[in-house]
Amino acid sequence: MSELSGKKTYDVMIIGGGGAGLTAALYTSRAKLSTVLFEKLVPGGQIASTDLVENYPGFPEGVLGPEVAQKMEAQAARYGAEIIYEEVLELSKREGRFEIKSSAGTSYAGRAVILAMGASFRTLGVPLEKQLTGKGVSYCATCDGAFFKGKKIIAVGGGDSALQEGLFLTRFAEQVTIVHRRDALRASPILQERAKKNPKISFIWDAVVDKIEGEKSVTHVLLKNVKTGAVQKVPVDGVFIFIGHDPNSGLARGFVKLNEKGYVVTDANLAASVPGVFAAGEVREGAVRQLVSACGEGCAAALAAQAYLEGHH
Amino acid sequence: MSELSGKKTYDVMIIGGGGAGLTAALYTSRAKLSTVLFEKLVPGGQIASTDLVENYPGFPEGVLGPEVAQKMEAQAARYGAEIIYEEVLELSKREGRFEIKSSAGTSYAGRAVILAMGASFRTLGVPLEKQLTGKGVSYCATCDGAFFKGKKIIAVGGGDSALQEGLFLTRFAEQVTIVHRRDALRASPILQERAKKNPKISFIWDAVVDKIEGEKSVTHVLLKNVKTGAVQKVPVDGVFIFIGHDPNSGLARGFVKLNEKGYVVTDANLAASVPGVFAAGEVREGAVRQLVSACGEGCAAALAAQAYLEGHH
Repeated sequence: MSELSGKKTYDVMIIGGGGAGLTAALYTSRAKLSTVLFEKLVPGGQIASTDLVENYPGFPEGVLGPEVAQKMEAQAARYGAEIIYEEVLELSKREGRFEIKSSAGTSYAGRAVILAMGASFRTLGVPLEKQLTGKGVSYCATCDGAFFKGKKIIAVGGGDSALQEGLFLTRFAEQVTIVHRRDALRASPILQERAKKNPKISFIWDAVVDKIEGEKSVTHVLLKNVKTGAVQKVPVDGVFIFIGHDPNSGLARGFVKLNEKGYVVTDANLAASVPGVFAAGEVREGAVRQLVSACGEGCAAALAAQAYLEGHH
Repeated sequence: MSELSGKKTYDVMIIGGGGAGLTAALYTSRAKLSTVLFEKLVPGGQIASTDLVENYPGFPEGVLGPEVAQKMEAQAARYGAEIIYEEVLELSKREGRFEIKSSAGTSYAGRAVILAMGASFRTLGVPLEKQLTGKGVSYCATCDGAFFKGKKIIAVGGGDSALQEGLFLTRFAEQVTIVHRRDALRASPILQERAKKNPKISFIWDAVVDKIEGEKSVTHVLLKNVKTGAVQKVPVDGVFIFIGHDPNSGLARGFVKLNEKGYVVTDANLAASVPGVFAAGEVREGAVRQLVSACGEGCAAALAAQAYLEGHH
C-alpha cells in the first residue's frame, strides 16, 4: 500500500517558486484548484537575488527583486495556494496520479504538475562574486545594462551571447572589455566582426577572472593570464558574466522529454511529453529569459493545466 | 519623392497601447532603440476598461485597470518611448522601411513594427443596439456601471467576462440578470459560485436578445427562448453585452498573414510573415487572453525585434 494512501491529492503541484511558478499558483488557486507549490530556497527564483527590477511592467520607478517576489507569493497565497519550502527530490507517476518526495522526507500527490524550476547562470566561482551580484556583478545585460551609463565594464565569455550582450552593453557603458580565457572566440564571425569594429569594445585574451574586488560595489577585478600566470588589477564598475546557463531540470530527467541541453520540451500549450505535466519559464526550451515572460508562461501553463483537469472530470 | 524624406526613422514602431504594446515599448526604449507607440484611445487597451485586476502578478490586493495601465505607460515613457494618440490608418513597406499613416494625416517611418492592436468586443447586431449604445447599451461595465444606480440590467453572455462584469455591475444596479443562450455557463467555477451566491444576480437560460427597445434610452428587451421560440418582453434600463471579441487586425490584412479568424499568424519568436514585423498580445493567433500573458509577449516581441535590427546592421 502506498504511503500516500488516504493523503490529500492536490489538483496541481507546482515545482519552483520563481515568477513562472508563483503566477501559475495564483491562477490555479484563484480558479479554485487546490494548489501546492514547492520552493527550495526563497520565493522569486532568480529575481530574488536581483536588486532593482526596472523592466517588470507596472512599476514605473522599478521594484526590488525580493519585494516583487514577496508580493507575488502573497498574491498566490491569498487565493489559497500552499507554499512549501522543501526541495523536490523525486517526481513520479503512479496509479494515475503524480507523486513527489521532498527533502523533508514527505510525500505529496497531485493530478497535474507544472515544472517551473528555472535555470541557473553559470558562475565564475570566484571570491565575492555572489556577495556583489546586483552590486556590479550581473548575468543579464537586458536586465542591468541601463544601470551602467558611462561606466567601465568587463564582459566574461567568448561565445555568441558574450559578444551579443557585450555589444548591447556599449549602448550604455563607456567601455566594454571582453575577457576570454582563450585566444580566439567561439562566437559567430558576424558578431566577431561587429565587436572588433566597435570603438567601445576591447579584448583581453587568455585571461580569467581570478578575483572580484569591492565593498559596497565592484571596484576592480584581478585578471590572470592563463598562459603566463601574470595577474593584472583592472578598475571596473561592472562584471557581466556570459558563460552560459543550465536548466534546473535534473528532477525531470527520465520523466519528461528534455532537449540535448536539458531544457523541458513542450508543445505550444506548454504541455510536456507526459500528459498532465506542463512547463513554464526558463526551464522550458525556447523560453524568453525575462521575469514578465516567465510570469506570462506561468499563466498559460496554469490555464492549460486547468483545461487538462476539466477535461478529466 | 516620398513625403517621409528627411523624416526621422524610428527603430521600432508599435501599434497598440495595451499591455503587450506598452511592455514592448518599455523593452525597446530601455534597450536604447528609438521607439514610437500609437494608441487611438487610452493606454491599457482592454485593461483600461477593467475595474479591479486581481490576477496581474505583483499586486496582492489587486490593482485598478486604468491605474496599472497608467503605470505601464509611465514606465515606457520614462525610457524615452514616444506615445502618440493617433489611430494608425495605413501600414506599408517601401524602400526597406515601414511606413505608417495616422488619423492625424501624419506619416511615420520605422525599421521594425510590432503589431499589438488587441481584440474588440463583439456586438449582438440587433435593432437599435447601435443607436442606444451609451443610452443603456454598453460593452464596458467600468465605464457605464455608475449610470445604473438602482436600475435593472441584463448582462448577455456565459463566459468569465459576463460573470465578472455582471458581478461588478451589482455594485450599482438593483438587479442583474445574466442572459445566456445555453443552459450552462462557460465561466470559471470561482466566478460561477460567486455569481450564484450573489442575491442581486439571477439567470435566464437558453435565451438570446431578439430586440432592444426604447426611444431616448433602453426600456425593454425582447428575449427569445432558443428551444421553444417563446419571446418574453423584459423591462430593463441597461443591456451589457459580453459575448466575445475579434482581433483588431484590419490594418494588417493583406500586409501580413492572418488566420481564418483574422488573428496574426506568427512563428515561435512572434515574427509575422513579413520580416521585421512582429505581433504580441490578443491580436496574435494563439495568445492567452490575460494581461500578464500579453505583457510577456510584448517583452518577447521586443527582444525579437531587437535581434532583427541587430542582424541588419
